Amino acid sequence: MLIVGENISVVAKAVSDAIKNRDAGPIIDLAKKQKEAGAHYIDVNIGPATKKGEELMQWLVKSIQDEVDLPLALDTKNINAIEAGLEVHKGTAMINSVTGDQDKLDILIPLAKKYNSKIVGIALTDKGVPPDVDSRLEIVMTIINSALEHGLPMQNLYLDPIALPVAVLQEQVHNSIEALKVFKQLKELMGLDENPRSIIGLSNVSQSSPEELKSLINKTYLLILESNGLDGVILDPLDKELMNAVKTYDVLTNKILYAHSYLD
Amino acid sequence: MLIVGENISVVAKAVSDAIKNRDAGPIIDLAKKQKEAGAHYIDVNIGPATKKGEELMQWLVKSIQDEVDLPLALDTKNINAIEAGLEVHKGTAMINSVTGDQDKLDILIPLAKKYNSKIVGIALTDKGVPPDVDSRLEIVMTIINSALEHGLPMQNLYLDPIALPVAVLQEQVHNSIEALKVFKQLKELMGLDENPRSIIGLSNVSQSSPEELKSLINKTYLLILESNGLDGVILDPLDKELMNAVKTYDVLTNKILYAHSYLD
Repeated sequence: MLIVGENISVVAKAVSDAIKNRDAGPIIDLAKKQKEAGAHYIDVNIGPATKKGEELMQWLVKSIQDEVDLPLALDTKNINAIEAGLEVHKGTAMINSVTGDQDKLDILIPLAKKYNSKIVGIALTDKGVPPDVDSRLEIVMTIINSALEHGLPMQNLYLDPIALPVAVLQEQVHNSIEALKVFKQLKELMGLDENPRSIIGLSNVSQSSPEELKSLINKTYLLILESNGLDGVILDPLDKELMNAVKTYDVLTNKILYAHSYLD
Repeated sequence: MLIVGENISVVAKAVSDAIKNRDAGPIIDLAKKQKEAGAHYIDVNIGPATKKGEELMQWLVKSIQDEVDLPLALDTKNINAIEAGLEVHKGTAMINSVTGDQDKLDILIPLAKKYNSKIVGIALTDKGVPPDVDSRLEIVMTIINSALEHGLPMQNLYLDPIALPVAVLQEQVHNSIEALKVFKQLKELMGLDENPRSIIGLSNVSQSSPEELKSLINKTYLLILESNGLDGVILDPLDKELMNAVKTYDVLTNKILYAHSYLD
């Protein structure tokens, strides 16, 4: 299970302040903590970043990678900032939140190919949330076709069936589980050499739910999705109960060795 | 998800004392609490019950059902005690812990047919724990063939792939998940009218693990098995975290309606 730590995001006030002041300390600290907690990638979400996005992304990539030996997931709607980040990134980067809009795919997929990046293709377009499983499938097929066209290997492609808030769109939450099951069959459905990987941005599922329910909802959803073949997840690795659930899953499915101390 | 409450068992000192003194109070209390917590069946485990098993089982069945409107799962190696219990049981009883030994099946399957009981057929024989998925499959096929022979409908049959302690037999824990997946295909494999149901005695999986890990291991295993199609479970319904995981599973898979108060 590929774990992408979500905590470096402009949505968090501490991160937004650190960015404003170009104070790398708190950001490096968050990256270190996420690595210690088990993250394999660190997401760097700078939001729309319409102003100075390129300089900001390069500053973040360099500041973090100078201190923490992990690859990053670059997360912004500013495509120039993505490329600026890729230019200075060490190792295999990930481009996060790539929607199924053809005009964006035409730029981002060639970028992923040029820099040999992984890419998270989400089952979403500018038109909004797809209403059912079939429309999710249609969107990710557009993404796959773009990857095929530009020679991006399927192993670089992670498809996200979209977690939506159970408090608001309960049926959609179930649709995403069903969509994941179909995504696992894309190799056969589309005659691909290899199946694309799958990933989900987990915490959306508990948005709008009361604070005391969030961790329970997140970890239960993750276990359901893992049991249905999920390959990766974008989550808060500092949620210890959530990470304990992931470790317990790995023990029970014989992926890591049991010891009474396996949580430590 | 059919929930069978496991708490009335001679293994528990309070139950064993109440049985010795023929004091129905604590037993009825346990049955009521399990019903309130969401149990659909109450397991009544009297152990080997070599002495006075028949009288004891009848006393328990009558005492509980006089006060609590739920069917019971009769659980003992004493076959005469099972029949005595079925004679006085109201509603559709369940016969628990039926192993794949032909001599026992030859008595218990006809009993289930006579009383229209459900039966839990476990992937185990007197020879011990099956080493792999195929040997589990072989055992449950023996059970199914016995049911077919005696005309017991498949909907009365619950197959248990056997939960074993992850602390002792880690690989077997994974085997049981794989066995469950195969059990879900028995209709096709054996050309049956209907697939038998599946169930698991959950708490075995955390036996021999430290106390503080048990609930986490139990609930994670249950969520993995539910995600793979498990139809029923024998568990401690008074473990609130475990029942909360079950409710959250039902919300996320759209089986019960979400409300901020869905845990209450």
